[in-house]
Amino acid sequence: MQKLPNITTHFSEWYNDVIYQAELVDQTPVRGAVVIRPYGWAIWEEVKSVLDQRIKQTGHQNASFPLLIPESFFKKEAEHVEGFAPELAIVTHAGGKELEEPLVIRPTSETMIHHMFARWIKSWRDLPLKINQWANVMRWELRPRPFLRTTEFFWQEGHTAHATQEQAHEEVLTMLQEYVDLAHNYLAIPVVTGLKSETEKFPGAEKTYTFEGLMPDGKALQMGTSHLLSQNFAKAFDMKYQDKEGNLSYPFLTSWGTTTRLIGAVIMVHGDEKGLVLPPKIAPTQVVIIPILKKGADTQAILDKAQSLASELKKAGVRVLVDDDESKSPGAKFYHWELRGVPMRVEIGPRDLEKGHVMLSDRLGLSKDAVPFDQLASTATERADLIQKELFERATEKRASQWYKVAKIADIAQGLDAQSGFYQTGWCGKAECEQELKKYKATTRCLLDEKSFDTCFNCDDASKGDVLIARSY
Amino acid sequence: MQKLPNITTHFSEWYNDVIYQAELVDQTPVRGAVVIRPYGWAIWEEVKSVLDQRIKQTGHQNASFPLLIPESFFKKEAEHVEGFAPELAIVTHAGGKELEEPLVIRPTSETMIHHMFARWIKSWRDLPLKINQWANVMRWELRPRPFLRTTEFFWQEGHTAHATQEQAHEEVLTMLQEYVDLAHNYLAIPVVTGLKSETEKFPGAEKTYTFEGLMPDGKALQMGTSHLLSQNFAKAFDMKYQDKEGNLSYPFLTSWGTTTRLIGAVIMVHGDEKGLVLPPKIAPTQVVIIPILKKGADTQAILDKAQSLASELKKAGVRVLVDDDESKSPGAKFYHWELRGVPMRVEIGPRDLEKGHVMLSDRLGLSKDAVPFDQLASTATERADLIQKELFERATEKRASQWYKVAKIADIAQGLDAQSGFYQTGWCGKAECEQELKKYKATTRCLLDEKSFDTCFNCDDASKGDVLIARSY
Repeated sequence: MQKLPNITTHFSEWYNDVIYQAELVDQTPVRGAVVIRPYGWAIWEEVKSVLDQRIKQTGHQNASFPLLIPESFFKKEAEHVEGFAPELAIVTHAGGKELEEPLVIRPTSETMIHHMFARWIKSWRDLPLKINQWANVMRWELRPRPFLRTTEFFWQEGHTAHATQEQAHEEVLTMLQEYVDLAHNYLAIPVVTGLKSETEKFPGAEKTYTFEGLMPDGKALQMGTSHLLSQNFAKAFDMKYQDKEGNLSYPFLTSWGTTTRLIGAVIMVHGDEKGLVLPPKIAPTQVVIIPILKKGADTQAILDKAQSLASELKKAGVRVLVDDDESKSPGAKFYHWELRGVPMRVEIGPRDLEKGHVMLSDRLGLSKDAVPFDQLASTATERADLIQKELFERATEKRASQWYKVAKIADIAQGLDAQSGFYQTGWCGKAECEQELKKYKATTRCLLDEKSFDTCFNCDDASKGDVLIARSY
Repeated sequence: MQKLPNITTHFSEWYNDVIYQAELVDQTPVRGAVVIRPYGWAIWEEVKSVLDQRIKQTGHQNASFPLLIPESFFKKEAEHVEGFAPELAIVTHAGGKELEEPLVIRPTSETMIHHMFARWIKSWRDLPLKINQWANVMRWELRPRPFLRTTEFFWQEGHTAHATQEQAHEEVLTMLQEYVDLAHNYLAIPVVTGLKSETEKFPGAEKTYTFEGLMPDGKALQMGTSHLLSQNFAKAFDMKYQDKEGNLSYPFLTSWGTTTRLIGAVIMVHGDEKGLVLPPKIAPTQVVIIPILKKGADTQAILDKAQSLASELKKAGVRVLVDDDESKSPGAKFYHWELRGVPMRVEIGPRDLEKGHVMLSDRLGLSKDAVPFDQLASTATERADLIQKELFERATEKRASQWYKVAKIADIAQGLDAQSGFYQTGWCGKAECEQELKKYKATTRCLLDEKSFDTCFNCDDASKGDVLIARSY
């Protein structure tokens, strides 16, 4: 193992190194495609399990739609095809023959799902229709980065249909709020939410809401989106149904999704010079028990106690692992599990066994103390909550220190060069002004529900409201 | 809703109708690709959750490997490419350009995973390596049938590497046994296991074990396989490691998988003239509560009681649903949930409310009786076990009635024409004799660990052991 690059001065290199050293991913011979290794996949399984439960509790049902979509489907919604065409991977041959019509590997499933919705929605009684899919999707990326931007990635995409615009809008906001809860209470990442500008919204959508985190290097990360598609797609896919009054109507549609990118956010926001720091609620292993075996001591008694403590922790719902590999020193194990961000460590040696306690410490260095055997499960559970809370607070403070309010583009430009971060400013709403940000490799991230400035950051027209500007992943 | 075709005389039509009427799947414009609708997907989620737990408990870790595999990877193992080439779907263009090397959508992931294993296995300390992946795969099918044979399907593929042939063989048999447990104790389907013949084994494998069910129409269904790959692939992918003695060695590999086809097996084996019959252990809804609302009665009190009973059932770990749709009659609801195979039904009307009980019946017609409110949870739990057991027993009896022992191919041919089923016979082991079965659209399904015949079913050479022959899906 090599030492990790300095996280403050070489953040990007640190990220690239830590994901391989902690065995989250590995490279493959296919451009932009990575292997998500067991430890990385286990984090995704934790995140997925939390979100899947909420998706079901909010009245959605999972289903599965085809990987391949006829090319012609993409052409039905004009903005949609324009947005996705450059990123498509295309199957032209199958079963030993050239296909009559090429098939596209889904970059997102609106078109196929709306085709099916048109079959299923015939009467107002069929609404609302609330479907979700966990799937792999593909968007050909020129500059791939594991978790943040890969050719193939994993996500959930929710797709719903409603009788009224109001109901569709409520759905969009409900699911946005679920994402915020996931980010705040599980990933321990504070996120800002708001509407995307016309330029930045999803191809074909009427409105796109986003939730974004700020990474320690001052770049914004779009962590997921919730779209009010309204009737555009419904019309493109001829999704007519008989409403309560007996008229033919088009339903109002939504879609919303979040991806394996969330793992990238967790790595960046919480990581430190020793490696990953995982929030306990999504850590595949919350407690690692390391037996300290010394010559002459009763090795078996220590190992037995380690296992019986693990059983008690498991019973209390704690995800625990005993590292009893005798070929490695305790020091090597400490290093190994710190790199992987396991929130808590339990050490148990001969003297601990005598005294009837263990040493419990945590990845954040909040405390290290002796805990009696019979109090370990309750203490670890409390400590997990503390760590979870502390991580969210630290991330919130960090973000506050990188959130600037500035009036004009010259200040934004200067700020971006100096330290980067979120720049809150006023905007007239015109695309030409937004366009100016390209010069500084920045974009509008979302519109805010505030008005702190009278004029636009670029022109002298009146501001319609605040906008958040940043460089982004 | 149309009446289902007669299940005895028109089994194939019955299958085709029931999967659409019960809303398990729907057709799409892409040949061989189906939508798995929420009810179908919920069954898969139940099956997956059971198997995933067992895969983890037997020491495997989930991971995720790329969807697209370079075409050249398939050519590294000669038998493997020959076996899969005709079924591949190929991506030739991506990101607006023609690719330098075409990429294949994985039909199975041995090649990509072995490429990665070669990177990860450097020392005997890295063994055993035990990985599993839940994924979508694609094999271009000319005669698709939902769940049984579709272009895209869902499965798990386990891939492991071991230091010795014995350990690899043990792994292959362990996972085969896990599949048998899944089939017997969850799907309630009796399966036969055994080795595939040389002709029928997995392309590139040394040995393939299969587990197969017998469908009511007398056709065999291969429900999954467990392969001893041995060192073929390890050599093809240059998977060398330093063994305990310091020499460079090749590991011994295995792979094993089962698919959404299991749902097809459940539909066929347990279904009846009213539709699906789901084993309680994998039924997304185990109990449906139907309030019987009559004019003049206290409707709200009945609905409240239905909901409070549902809460109690949920607490007891029963998957329950209250069908309180006031636009449908109780009769329409009975029909709806019988078609979907829900194992138990609870009716509660005004008189039941007065008497403090509900009417509990089951999909098999085993019993229909009044159960006091406070005994519902325990009774439903016991009844679920009874139904599960009964389904397995019925399927086992049915299979026994379709399992024939016959000495010669003429008898097999006659049998197949008359009633089909499993034909147990003797075999000399030569491919030419096996080849003769093609004339009768039959194949060897697996070798049995018995020897009931002295000579081969086809020639007069000595039998090496019994073989099971059938037509198959």
